[in-house]
Amino acid sequence: MPQPVLSVGSLALDTITMPNGRTHGNVVGGSLAYFIHGASFFSPVRVVGAVGEDFPRKYLEGFKKRRADLLGLQILPGRTFQWHGTYLADMNNRVTDALHFGVLESFDPVVPEKYRDTKFLFLACLQPELQARVLDQVRGSPLAVCDTIEVYIRGHRPALDRVIRRCQGMIVNDAEAKLISGEDNLVKAAAGLRKKYRLSFLVLKKGEHGGLLAVPDGVFPFPAYPLARIADPTGAGDSFAGGFMGWLAKSGKTDLRNLKLATAGATAVASRACEGLSLSSLAGATPAGIRARAAEFVKMTRLG
Amino acid sequence: MPQPVLSVGSLALDTITMPNGRTHGNVVGGSLAYFIHGASFFSPVRVVGAVGEDFPRKYLEGFKKRRADLLGLQILPGRTFQWHGTYLADMNNRVTDALHFGVLESFDPVVPEKYRDTKFLFLACLQPELQARVLDQVRGSPLAVCDTIEVYIRGHRPALDRVIRRCQGMIVNDAEAKLISGEDNLVKAAAGLRKKYRLSFLVLKKGEHGGLLAVPDGVFPFPAYPLARIADPTGAGDSFAGGFMGWLAKSGKTDLRNLKLATAGATAVASRACEGLSLSSLAGATPAGIRARAAEFVKMTRLG
Repeated sequence: MPQPVLSVGSLALDTITMPNGRTHGNVVGGSLAYFIHGASFFSPVRVVGAVGEDFPRKYLEGFKKRRADLLGLQILPGRTFQWHGTYLADMNNRVTDALHFGVLESFDPVVPEKYRDTKFLFLACLQPELQARVLDQVRGSPLAVCDTIEVYIRGHRPALDRVIRRCQGMIVNDAEAKLISGEDNLVKAAAGLRKKYRLSFLVLKKGEHGGLLAVPDGVFPFPAYPLARIADPTGAGDSFAGGFMGWLAKSGKTDLRNLKLATAGATAVASRACEGLSLSSLAGATPAGIRARAAEFVKMTRLG
Repeated sequence: MPQPVLSVGSLALDTITMPNGRTHGNVVGGSLAYFIHGASFFSPVRVVGAVGEDFPRKYLEGFKKRRADLLGLQILPGRTFQWHGTYLADMNNRVTDALHFGVLESFDPVVPEKYRDTKFLFLACLQPELQARVLDQVRGSPLAVCDTIEVYIRGHRPALDRVIRRCQGMIVNDAEAKLISGEDNLVKAAAGLRKKYRLSFLVLKKGEHGGLLAVPDGVFPFPAYPLARIADPTGAGDSFAGGFMGWLAKSGKTDLRNLKLATAGATAVASRACEGLSLSSLAGATPAGIRARAAEFVKMTRLG
């Protein structure tokens, strides 16, 4: 029986401009939206988040279709968090054109009583003070894993440090790992973060170049799933985290074997996320399809 | 009994400035020098190349220690090819400060009679007209594989196209693959190059991010071996090609299983090359040590 994953993060309405100049307005986004979809292929998801009254009902229906439990979702007066971004020619870089925090400015995450004993917890990208509020409300010793971004590393460092210290794992981008650790070499950055925060595992993501899984026994590099076409890389990292945590919750184990299988499942999810605009590709994917791609990826990367 | 590999390429005296400002003058370099060392862990190497009268005898002794057959090496009046380069802060980028072609200006590769039936041939980075001269002199149908760089793609395209058409495989950097194919996506670039030149296999190298092996059955991404310290990445790609061709020659097979094992062997060699200045780290490595790292890499990258 797969265990549920509890996650807090942002839900957003994104406006994305593609390299061809075409703009897609008010599509569903946010770290939590991608996480929900990514995790749902393996495990049920319990959601703590907030949207404004403008958040389209069809997007909430989309979360429900993915088995998401929305008991912890707050619909607040005001507007949903908005992100406007533009992708540069090669799709590997993007610029943020605008951010409107909307209801996230006053969001106070409340973990429903029913959720408080959840054993797998992911703190998706959000202000560390709000991530801490969720940690405060859960009971027992869940496997807590967090993500963060540059703005919180630079502007909320003491709060972020406290959150990471309360976590067993971390899933972040390479640039963020370098920034937090002060190490330019990724192997050293992983070792530094693991030691400083006493983490059991770390995943350092490198986008189209895959990433690095780091545990006390060593580091394990992995490539990305090769795609001939990237429709929209938005949320690939968040859906990767979803696939990763969903796998761990499903297996109930965090040994090296399952961390590696989780990496394959996460890679399958993240690559699928890139194949359509916003959540469209993940919304159309099936657990069987994701499992098949994960198995293909395991085989593809086996060198001997 | 491992088969020999025949290779033509450049032998150089490099002057390398490191990010800390320290300059190392007249160290041994060139595509062929790194290739020889890389291949030598698996197979004997037959060398076609040229140096000037200034090329230190100790460097020739170094090639001999690696079982290199130097019958095809010409010692010409004049100076050895020189490359001067400076690495930028993160070691992933470098600028070429100067190139002095020296004896390579008048080099006419001659393949000794004894070498002409060699079954494994690597055309390391060199003017395509000179690569073609070697192809003209070999008999039978060797497995011919080539490398090239931007300057020849832009300035010698018709000659380069003819060389690639006479090869069964290609080992090039990602940027070069994109430039030759006109495709920005690496999966598409690999497919385009394979079809256009009717290649049996391609390896697209991405430096610290590993690369992509492409065969008619599909593409197989691989990461780089994780290093906590890069002393000098010069020649990593050439030693990768050496390890790759050396493995194929040793196994005598080019099926997918051996292409994948060759990739692991090549990755072990390339990572070792980065651990010391110039050829120092490879010169100190043993076949057993390289095999152990290749086996470690196979295990490390196995996800399930």
